[in-house]
Amino acid sequence: PPVSIWYLSLPSLFSSNPRDFSLPNSSWGTEMRQLYEHYNSQCEAVTDGGEEQSGLWNRLPSYNRSLKYAAGGVYLSKIIQAKARLFTRNIRDPGAAFEYVIFANKKEQRCVCIFQAGHLLEGPPGNVHGGAIATMIDTVTGTHACVHSGPVMTANLNINYRSPIPLGSTVLIESSLDKKEGRKTLVKCKVTSADGARLHTEATALFVSIGVSQLIQG
Amino acid sequence: PPVSIWYLSLPSLFSSNPRDFSLPNSSWGTEMRQLYEHYNSQCEAVTDGGEEQSGLWNRLPSYNRSLKYAAGGVYLSKIIQAKARLFTRNIRDPGAAFEYVIFANKKEQRCVCIFQAGHLLEGPPGNVHGGAIATMIDTVTGTHACVHSGPVMTANLNINYRSPIPLGSTVLIESSLDKKEGRKTLVKCKVTSADGARLHTEATALFVSIGVSQLIQG
Repeated sequence: PPVSIWYLSLPSLFSSNPRDFSLPNSSWGTEMRQLYEHYNSQCEAVTDGGEEQSGLWNRLPSYNRSLKYAAGGVYLSKIIQAKARLFTRNIRDPGAAFEYVIFANKKEQRCVCIFQAGHLLEGPPGNVHGGAIATMIDTVTGTHACVHSGPVMTANLNINYRSPIPLGSTVLIESSLDKKEGRKTLVKCKVTSADGARLHTEATALFVSIGVSQLIQG
Repeated sequence: PPVSIWYLSLPSLFSSNPRDFSLPNSSWGTEMRQLYEHYNSQCEAVTDGGEEQSGLWNRLPSYNRSLKYAAGGVYLSKIIQAKARLFTRNIRDPGAAFEYVIFANKKEQRCVCIFQAGHLLEGPPGNVHGGAIATMIDTVTGTHACVHSGPVMTANLNINYRSPIPLGSTVLIESSLDKKEGRKTLVKCKVTSADGARLHTEATALFVSIGVSQLIQG
């Protein structure tokens, strides 16, 4: 039986222009900006001349609200529905918590996330909480599985922590498609320092496809 | 090589009376309060007559700051050090995010956590983010391993998500000691509905003991 449902952002259902949290802000450090530029410059774009430029990568926008219906027909109070915010985007103060942007490479079936860990994510003294790392792994692999297979739920996360991530640092989270069998999508993932030299975390994630009706059933 | 370090709260190092986040507040619903009373009434206490009453359980206090030194000698900016807050206690608005209290039963080598999931923890529409669930599993099993083995780091989390947790609901997180071999402490964990009837999540967690010097080395 399924599992923590994953979902795609649905900005068109919001009242007006929602904030895209994946765009650069003043809190981003040098490493975060340089890596962003590296991938963003290889994205699909419309040139000044109006021509479409194809690209290896797609930047995925990121919003802090989703549909206001519980899955599985569970009743939620109107207050909770109105106040609900995506866990990874629930603090508006730039740089305080999760700063990240995900790029998808459909051809190579991989995603890369640039993640700058803010001071509100502390676990061990001076380092990022293991749960915050798990949260980013779930986010990147879940988004990847969604891009590949449509709506899915997280069924399993298996995470090996190799070395702590200092608060304030920027890391790379790279996911690659392992296999897809029927309703199952298996994704591998690793977290490294921005230069790729230090391995922080390795993980596998299993997702199960669900119908859209399961997602918005209220 | 280790891993996301876990740690014990050290309130005595703070400037003045720190807030104990494990105590009841106005956001706690009926289920949260009833479960709290159930375990709290079985805790060690000093009676009105001044006598010590022994108990099956101990309530573990919970603070939002730890030592201000990075592990492994990593340099952290003064700003990040001053602003750092424990990930699970980084939002002061009662009821908005993680409301939880952990009780430890040393004799039976198990812990129980009562967790009320606030509206800022959304993942799938209307349900708790898989990363927020992973965060609470890391917190409860890590605290349990610490109580049993002293300072440890998280080495592995293996989480099976069975059914989604609706935003706003209260769940029980129960951990039990699986085994201890040398520096390794293995803890099992399950998340159920408050009445125990519905299984939400199952997990195993592996921790590796570290010296206190590794924790506060700056």
